[in-house]
Amino acid sequence: MSNKVSKNTLLMSNPPSIPFFSATVGSKEGEGPIGICFDTVEEDGYFGQDSWEKAESQMQKMNIQNMLTKANLSPSEIDLIFSGDIINQCTVSAFGLKELNIPFLGIFGACSTIAEGLLLAGLLADNGAAASVIASTSSHFSTAERQFRFPLSYGKQPAPTAQWTCTGAGAALVTGSAAPPYIRAVSIGKIVDMNITDANNMGAAMAPAAADTIKSYFDATQKQPPDYDFIVTGDLGTVGSALLIDLLKADNIDISAKHKDCGVMIYDPETQGTNAGGSGCGCGASVLCGFFLPKLQSGEIKNILFVGTGALMSPLVTQQGQSIPAIAHLLHISHMKE
Amino acid sequence: MSNKVSKNTLLMSNPPSIPFFSATVGSKEGEGPIGICFDTVEEDGYFGQDSWEKAESQMQKMNIQNMLTKANLSPSEIDLIFSGDIINQCTVSAFGLKELNIPFLGIFGACSTIAEGLLLAGLLADNGAAASVIASTSSHFSTAERQFRFPLSYGKQPAPTAQWTCTGAGAALVTGSAAPPYIRAVSIGKIVDMNITDANNMGAAMAPAAADTIKSYFDATQKQPPDYDFIVTGDLGTVGSALLIDLLKADNIDISAKHKDCGVMIYDPETQGTNAGGSGCGCGASVLCGFFLPKLQSGEIKNILFVGTGALMSPLVTQQGQSIPAIAHLLHISHMKE
Repeated sequence: MSNKVSKNTLLMSNPPSIPFFSATVGSKEGEGPIGICFDTVEEDGYFGQDSWEKAESQMQKMNIQNMLTKANLSPSEIDLIFSGDIINQCTVSAFGLKELNIPFLGIFGACSTIAEGLLLAGLLADNGAAASVIASTSSHFSTAERQFRFPLSYGKQPAPTAQWTCTGAGAALVTGSAAPPYIRAVSIGKIVDMNITDANNMGAAMAPAAADTIKSYFDATQKQPPDYDFIVTGDLGTVGSALLIDLLKADNIDISAKHKDCGVMIYDPETQGTNAGGSGCGCGASVLCGFFLPKLQSGEIKNILFVGTGALMSPLVTQQGQSIPAIAHLLHISHMKE
Repeated sequence: MSNKVSKNTLLMSNPPSIPFFSATVGSKEGEGPIGICFDTVEEDGYFGQDSWEKAESQMQKMNIQNMLTKANLSPSEIDLIFSGDIINQCTVSAFGLKELNIPFLGIFGACSTIAEGLLLAGLLADNGAAASVIASTSSHFSTAERQFRFPLSYGKQPAPTAQWTCTGAGAALVTGSAAPPYIRAVSIGKIVDMNITDANNMGAAMAPAAADTIKSYFDATQKQPPDYDFIVTGDLGTVGSALLIDLLKADNIDISAKHKDCGVMIYDPETQGTNAGGSGCGCGASVLCGFFLPKLQSGEIKNILFVGTGALMSPLVTQQGQSIPAIAHLLHISHMKE
């Protein structure tokens, strides 16, 4: 049974394990600064399909299948899968996963999806409700761009604060087995809305949510930034990352020496034209599953806080002039079980 | 700790309670055959707002606030809320709930959302991970119609097999407390796709998913239809309901004497022009929270299976000629704890 130490923070009593994981990305991500870490870099942006949406579904399915191959498991040995994405009605996930025939619970956390899936998987595995649960998500530049912004052929110049939707998928298996890394604690975020209305500046909309969740975790656990190798945010980008550090400093929490952002890590803005960095469900998911989890498994990294961040907006509410509510969910992932 | 009796069916070891619930609907639903059962019937389709989307957010918020008033609880006493809807990126839920300041996990199950939320709330409450969890959802005719079908002012005639998106919200509080009704068991559905491509016949797309989940529950528990007062589906409508009964008969499961469908119950097609019946996240949610849960609380009804059904489609995939994957999640809800 998980132990609540505050309203929204739970410590795992028998920390569940994340023994297998996989990350699949597109060619641009493969050419980026951490491109070598991903399991699969697919040069064909269509992933062999005839639409961008089918391509993203195929990427998510291929990535899960790669993870199952690494785990030597068949889909029938999995109890449950949590998945979602940022395409309308999460159809990318439904179409990608339907042939796997695994009990499915759809989640929507925008770019925080991998964190939401892992924390739910962790709580169910810790409590014995499920023995093997997958958390999976994806995003694709071309599905997101035409849904959220403009037709690809329009060739719009992105704003300097805008982020580049990552083509990537991440999946991780959560079980009760005793192999590193482990989910040691989770904090469930609240919706935070600071009245940012610029959909080209999602990092600024998400940073206050990340700050709120990180502060609530430190308050509940009495831990401090030096207790972790890295404090990793999903995809705040350069603008949001700077804002997060400032917001937490105002609360006397200095994460500047420990902070990494998946959106900043995945591209080189100088050579890749990605402005403020990467975004999309697949950004945090692929960097977590491709870069951090392997190092947490080997022990090269001992402890991280992974903070998935999501902007809970749609093209419609942006057109209606509404603000961008945001959310952040946190996991403490460790090489050690205790 | 919940006990798995099959891959996707879990029996609650200490069945969590649903002591409080609320249903809010629009005027059309209030004029329907079970209109008297709802907590609130709002005559103003705009719910005092200036857009349909804000109206739906307001309805969902009002409905939760009504439930909290009945429970004599403030939002700060709630550990967690699961919510989602069928509007793009679930923004109705995000905007409706953001001021409540409750830890939030977004879910996407289309019209199965209330079942998905309740089963996750039940598993977390049974396992002690959360003491008080809300499951909430909503749909609004006017937000859904213009997103999924046509501009309202176009005045399209619906197909005879089409369903009418319900204006309604349902919310229920799940706790460990000892008051009826209780969540006794859950079955998590798989995505089922029978290659139905007609978005005007979602009942036919969802019926095979409902049949699959109901059969898996009966197989796992060795229960039979006579063990329940009612077997309630979310919103298959008349077409999908007939198909469900036929599909299960082919598996030697006869639910015809026990079956009720929220989509069939909520309107009178003869006088209300609703064709095959109601649909939308708010349909099953408002009928469950307004009609069934009060009777399960009082003991007038002793046992139901509630099967939330969802069509995991979007306007885009329909336009692309794709099929409609569907899902169904099941809960056994009982007046008795054992």
